[in-house]
Amino acid sequence: MKIGFLGLGLMGCGMAGRLLDAGNELIVCNRTASGTDALRARGARVAATPLDLLDAEVVVSMLADDAAVEAMCITSGFAARLPAGRLHLNMATVSLRMAKRLTQLHREGGSDYAAAPVFGRPAAAEQGQLDIVAGGAAAALKRCEPLFAAMGKSVFIAGEEPATANIVKIARNYMLAAAVESMGEAFALVRKSGVDAKAFYELVTTTSFTGSSYRNYGKLMVERNFDNASFTLKLGLKDVELALAAGGDTQVPLPLAGVIREQHLGALNSGLGDKDWASLAEYIAARAGLS
Amino acid sequence: MKIGFLGLGLMGCGMAGRLLDAGNELIVCNRTASGTDALRARGARVAATPLDLLDAEVVVSMLADDAAVEAMCITSGFAARLPAGRLHLNMATVSLRMAKRLTQLHREGGSDYAAAPVFGRPAAAEQGQLDIVAGGAAAALKRCEPLFAAMGKSVFIAGEEPATANIVKIARNYMLAAAVESMGEAFALVRKSGVDAKAFYELVTTTSFTGSSYRNYGKLMVERNFDNASFTLKLGLKDVELALAAGGDTQVPLPLAGVIREQHLGALNSGLGDKDWASLAEYIAARAGLS
Amino acid sequence: MKIGFLGLGLMGCGMAGRLLDAGNELIVCNRTASGTDALRARGARVAATPLDLLDAEVVVSMLADDAAVEAMCITSGFAARLPAGRLHLNMATVSLRMAKRLTQLHREGGSDYAAAPVFGRPAAAEQGQLDIVAGGAAAALKRCEPLFAAMGKSVFIAGEEPATANIVKIARNYMLAAAVESMGEAFALVRKSGVDAKAFYELVTTTSFTGSSYRNYGKLMVERNFDNASFTLKLGLKDVELALAAGGDTQVPLPLAGVIREQHLGALNSGLGDKDWASLAEYIAARAGLS
Amino acid sequence: MKIGFLGLGLMGCGMAGRLLDAGNELIVCNRTASGTDALRARGARVAATPLDLLDAEVVVSMLADDAAVEAMCITSGFAARLPAGRLHLNMATVSLRMAKRLTQLHREGGSDYAAAPVFGRPAAAEQGQLDIVAGGAAAALKRCEPLFAAMGKSVFIAGEEPATANIVKIARNYMLAAAVESMGEAFALVRKSGVDAKAFYELVTTTSFTGSSYRNYGKLMVERNFDNASFTLKLGLKDVELALAAGGDTQVPLPLAGVIREQHLGALNSGLGDKDWASLAEYIAARAGLS
Repeated sequence: MKIGFLGLGLMGCGMAGRLLDAGNELIVCNRTASGTDALRARGARVAATPLDLLDAEVVVSMLADDAAVEAMCITSGFAARLPAGRLHLNMATVSLRMAKRLTQLHREGGSDYAAAPVFGRPAAAEQGQLDIVAGGAAAALKRCEPLFAAMGKSVFIAGEEPATANIVKIARNYMLAAAVESMGEAFALVRKSGVDAKAFYELVTTTSFTGSSYRNYGKLMVERNFDNASFTLKLGLKDVELALAAGGDTQVPLPLAGVIREQHLGALNSGLGDKDWASLAEYIAARAGLS
Repeated sequence: MKIGFLGLGLMGCGMAGRLLDAGNELIVCNRTASGTDALRARGARVAATPLDLLDAEVVVSMLADDAAVEAMCITSGFAARLPAGRLHLNMATVSLRMAKRLTQLHREGGSDYAAAPVFGRPAAAEQGQLDIVAGGAAAALKRCEPLFAAMGKSVFIAGEEPATANIVKIARNYMLAAAVESMGEAFALVRKSGVDAKAFYELVTTTSFTGSSYRNYGKLMVERNFDNASFTLKLGLKDVELALAAGGDTQVPLPLAGVIREQHLGALNSGLGDKDWASLAEYIAARAGLS
Repeated sequence: MKIGFLGLGLMGCGMAGRLLDAGNELIVCNRTASGTDALRARGARVAATPLDLLDAEVVVSMLADDAAVEAMCITSGFAARLPAGRLHLNMATVSLRMAKRLTQLHREGGSDYAAAPVFGRPAAAEQGQLDIVAGGAAAALKRCEPLFAAMGKSVFIAGEEPATANIVKIARNYMLAAAVESMGEAFALVRKSGVDAKAFYELVTTTSFTGSSYRNYGKLMVERNFDNASFTLKLGLKDVELALAAGGDTQVPLPLAGVIREQHLGALNSGLGDKDWASLAEYIAARAGLS
Repeated sequence: MKIGFLGLGLMGCGMAGRLLDAGNELIVCNRTASGTDALRARGARVAATPLDLLDAEVVVSMLADDAAVEAMCITSGFAARLPAGRLHLNMATVSLRMAKRLTQLHREGGSDYAAAPVFGRPAAAEQGQLDIVAGGAAAALKRCEPLFAAMGKSVFIAGEEPATANIVKIARNYMLAAAVESMGEAFALVRKSGVDAKAFYELVTTTSFTGSSYRNYGKLMVERNFDNASFTLKLGLKDVELALAAGGDTQVPLPLAGVIREQHLGALNSGLGDKDWASLAEYIAARAGLS
């Protein structure tokens, strides 16, 4: 299949590589040159602008945030000019509002649009082990199946509106934010009474909180291992903001989110923005008078 | 061993029964007659007041809350008069402040004191399958080993101060409250955008939130099954209050707890106090304009 | 002076009228025809697009929100094409981000820019009784003095950066939101204990809370008079969102704002969006089980 | 009139002095000797225990907190043994729960009980310039009129239940806490954008926030004058806790209070507990990265 690929960050490069490996013809486009060299060496063609991708059967986008999507997919004219019959598969984590706007733009332009944000880190992307949440018309998702098979290890269908996939991604990430914050608070609470955080961590992650969310972030908190961030606190804040924005747009009060956001802002002022998300626990502990 | 047992609610009855089955001599005391009949039939002696338990080697207490502990263990004169060499093993969930007060009272009186709150429901108590969190001097906990073996399936040693066990129990329950609230909020967020809560539940509990806390409460939320409460919303509120009180006493800000408490108060006014804790999700959904 | 005026809502009409009355030559532009007729009858010239205002010495804008500013001042090309020596005086309440963006655009284009959001309602605008908060270079503000004199009864200089005026407006409105919410909560608290809200209102507004913010909104709460909204709950939410956005952009945690926003979202679902802001007290009371 | 007076802190001394000056016969009792010497010199008789006050016609109490009230009025046997026809006038700020408990105890004992917490500082107490909030049966309050006249400059009748006066005091102090926190947040917000806090203070306290609550605390914030605390942050926290406890007991969600409490706990860990309440603004500013 002739596939276009927009956005070659760490995630995008891994995913595009998988599509190449699966035997697809790939034409890629990135705002900077980074990422394009390696893919060119593996056989991808490099395009100058998103408009050069208009004749691909499916164009996958994996851009950093709403602003990048706005620039590459909307301002560029891509969404409006994608021909009927072509499909834009947006795999980035974008706001609910952007999801609906893109859906509308493609609908007006006559082309197809589906959303498929993913769970997983760059290593999982490179190995085709992503968990994919897909939203869109059944026919559109059907066309994506070979792409999903190349990039992911599971596909969850959220609904027939593309935005359903985005809200699922946003809601799940929000649960993660609450888990990180509440575990950080619990750690501060027990530490202040002389209990070892590591012991408490062992207790909770072997009883009712066995999920990877608690195990992974809790481990980093206990080890105070924040420098090799695979997901930064700043990105965590972005996810909370997406939840708040979605809650605002759909009138869903998320009282925890309001509080969690403010904690992140405080943590930024403590210089933790580029540390691992787990470092939120350090900010919480500092507020509790722990060092 | 000659063991005293104070407090014969659903949990206490099960635990006392296990101690009987293990061949101990048991003398029990409850504020009401309920619970005493069944244990008498199984061989326990029934005492009129806590002071009748002063000659037991170990006195286990499993009372409902601080007020009950105050009445039965303090106002009664029990704690002050327990002889040197005797051990009070308090397995109830009490406040951090009460834990420290009892520790102090027994220390002054010359007797030993240990805390061992438990995780698990009445059925687990009856089957000796509780998870026990123990705090106290090593020698005291050593003496409790046969009792723990009869009542529990695991023992976690929190520290040499009895109160360490209480803070661990409180902190873990607080994490549970945050899990319930955040899952409820996430459900409302996806439902308002047309995503089926059950599908979302399947996604999160099979990926990063596999722990029983999410699986059990999430299942009840999805099924809207709140009438056969094994743990009521009112009890959930009590746990959040214990966390807030402990945070207040040790100067640990718990910003999520402040918000979660208010949600529970609102839910009480919706008539959910005696429903399952999972019904908090109904209150959250109602605030979001869902029905 | 030849003055352009963009945006003829209730506030804009009153302000433009004052500028006419002061003997200025006025050319006005609105997205809809509403408002233009009355001003034309009073001698204003009506322009079709913002670009028709480029030869006015000062162009005042009084648009509803960021989106309107974006459309009328940026997308239209107005900001980029305003000639050197001309001054854009933006009197609307916009976000901190928009304030900085406009400052930058005019700086790049070579024209002058100042911000002067106002306090006061349509009646005050019509009577030239607004309180004006101004930010901008001293020379620019000097040029605005005759305009300020025609429209306002006081001018507060926030700083030499236009955005300083916006942040002052946003912060003061945020204080108002907190006053409305906290008074609503206090009313619910006393009412639930059988105290008359009106009596409590009298007490607090004649002792330590004599300011108009408490007197005006408290009066509406007590009278339950919400239908003739001079400022709707929906607009109150917009102000809280502006504070949160400014806090986010400048890394200032505003923990109350996070909570207040969620209350507003809940209130929207109770159908209070177009009621007076004071109706937030009804939502608070309902959560408290009062009717 | 023969009046008993329990509690001779700074407030109590001033109030007792006013009762003496008005020509009453006074018998005073304090847990420590402090305060008694000066009053003895002015003609008061000093009693050893609260029970020595049982034959006074009215016994005024002005104790520090619930614990002091519990010790002096309940554990001592005072409330239970006060004879029929005698009146206990409790002017301390106590919890709603304690207010109801004392009401009940006196009712059972056959004596009368009224509550009359006050607004005002020690200097106002000394000059008889307190603002009094009174709750109780009309006949009981009638008997207190000469006492109120000696101690206060205004009397507000909250209701026929004593506890109504306490909830009014608690709710008004809670509004104050919200004012302090929200002003502190607003100051941080404008300062972070380069606006002088003093200028902002002038603007808001001369427009919509003219009340003394904003003027007094805002002035201290701007001057960073926190060492001569007339009301400490720790006492502010106590007031927020009273509001939360009252909200808990009557099922009134107070979402702001939940957040405000946590801010105070954080501030305590910054060493601000004994500083003026206004120093909360320093903690807020520090979280915002301001120094």
